[in-house]
Amino acid sequence: MKRSDRLVAMTNYLIEHPMELISLPFFSDTYGAAKSSISEDLTIINRRFQEDGIGYLASISGAAGGVKYIPRVGPEHSQSFIERLCEDLEDPSRILPGGYLFMSDVLGNPSIVRNIGRLFASKFADLDIDSIVTVATKGIPIAYAVASFLNVPVIIVRRDPKVTEGSTVSINYVSGSSKKIQTMVLSKRSLDLGENVCIIDDFMKAGGTINGMKSLLQEFNANVCAIGVLAEAEDEEEERVVDDYISLLQIKNVDANNKEIEVVKGNYFQTSNH
Amino acid sequence: MKRSDRLVAMTNYLIEHPMELISLPFFSDTYGAAKSSISEDLTIINRRFQEDGIGYLASISGAAGGVKYIPRVGPEHSQSFIERLCEDLEDPSRILPGGYLFMSDVLGNPSIVRNIGRLFASKFADLDIDSIVTVATKGIPIAYAVASFLNVPVIIVRRDPKVTEGSTVSINYVSGSSKKIQTMVLSKRSLDLGENVCIIDDFMKAGGTINGMKSLLQEFNANVCAIGVLAEAEDEEEERVVDDYISLLQIKNVDANNKEIEVVKGNYFQTSNH
Repeated sequence: MKRSDRLVAMTNYLIEHPMELISLPFFSDTYGAAKSSISEDLTIINRRFQEDGIGYLASISGAAGGVKYIPRVGPEHSQSFIERLCEDLEDPSRILPGGYLFMSDVLGNPSIVRNIGRLFASKFADLDIDSIVTVATKGIPIAYAVASFLNVPVIIVRRDPKVTEGSTVSINYVSGSSKKIQTMVLSKRSLDLGENVCIIDDFMKAGGTINGMKSLLQEFNANVCAIGVLAEAEDEEEERVVDDYISLLQIKNVDANNKEIEVVKGNYFQTSNH
Repeated sequence: MKRSDRLVAMTNYLIEHPMELISLPFFSDTYGAAKSSISEDLTIINRRFQEDGIGYLASISGAAGGVKYIPRVGPEHSQSFIERLCEDLEDPSRILPGGYLFMSDVLGNPSIVRNIGRLFASKFADLDIDSIVTVATKGIPIAYAVASFLNVPVIIVRRDPKVTEGSTVSINYVSGSSKKIQTMVLSKRSLDLGENVCIIDDFMKAGGTINGMKSLLQEFNANVCAIGVLAEAEDEEEERVVDDYISLLQIKNVDANNKEIEVVKGNYFQTSNH
């Protein structure tokens, strides 16, 4: 295969297989090219991925070595994406009775959701995560987006047991803001004991739901390595029961009477590792 | 930019923007190359996409013309993918009490879900679909996968109204197999009147849920252009209330006593347009 064809094919292959170690002989065999040519191709692809702000290729040397596509969004790309999102969410027509914010259209846009997933995956790529855990319903699309970039499965905690889940483990927990007792269930087969998990959700107020998930995950001896939420509410900081989380957005000052709202960047942009 | 770099960047751009018309001047300006060079690049990319079975580039000529990446899985790729999936699902340890099948691990695998989405998108790419509609919970990941390839939003019908949805339209419907009365709600803002929609779900027995969605969508004057389900149950054919659907899998003969199960390809592979 000619270099030009190979570059297209390898770009596509790498994008479809993030975080997966691919050996040079695999590429050589698949595309009928010498290892030296494949290495040159990978140098070109690596340069382009970095300039386009979508990640880089990590080289692992040795007999079991190869190349791995690590998704990583550059700070310029991530900042401009989140700034646009903040602006969009500050539209006063989004304010609902009770001071809630209508976000279903944003969460329904697959391209926005994919970018949100890419941002979290960038941050969590080094944590050796085995699976993404979320709770039904609104966190699901974001969880899949993160999982697709980290190449790990998604596990969905439910509010109600379903026959198609098989035997389940359930816990009762107290919601942080409303102080109501709620239930969560997780299928027994869904998680192996001792996995490294990342919790993803769309929204966090006091953090009761995330705390509930943490308790449930303890039953599986899971190690919660990371918690990512798209948006956090600012005004609940005093009562917050979860503190080790990463947020992309912070929703401040929802003023339903004057139809005003302020949405700012979350703590994702404060931490030093980015 | 050199051709080799341009091929990597354009491949990535096209994959990230399926079903979107991209003008040649856009590529020329972005990558600083003559239109004739861009045309040659697109010929290479088109050839590779077709040989890799991921789709093709459609050229639209004229002043408002350009190029559009249309996802299309070739018959060999789609058949071999579904055959592997059937084999995996025939594992007897998946059989649950009551003759149900455990599928959460398959639906939790982002790469499998993405491939399922690509198959439906291939089939529905010509239907001019405005949005994908699904019902919480298990259909959601598949709906997003289809939507990401068709570049349209996802709209989630819920079983229970939530304050963050704003005002909603609700209907009561009779579930096809259990004959129970159930409720479905859809946020009023989620859909414009008269849209072309595609319904996606994970599983269909008699089809009561899908029929319920169709009734709810009538309230929005929506035109249901396509219905796609991952798996259909065979034994409900007599009572079926929906007939114009595409299934990828058919689950036959779940024998909980003898721990046997048969999973075969769905009607996706019977229709002539593929």
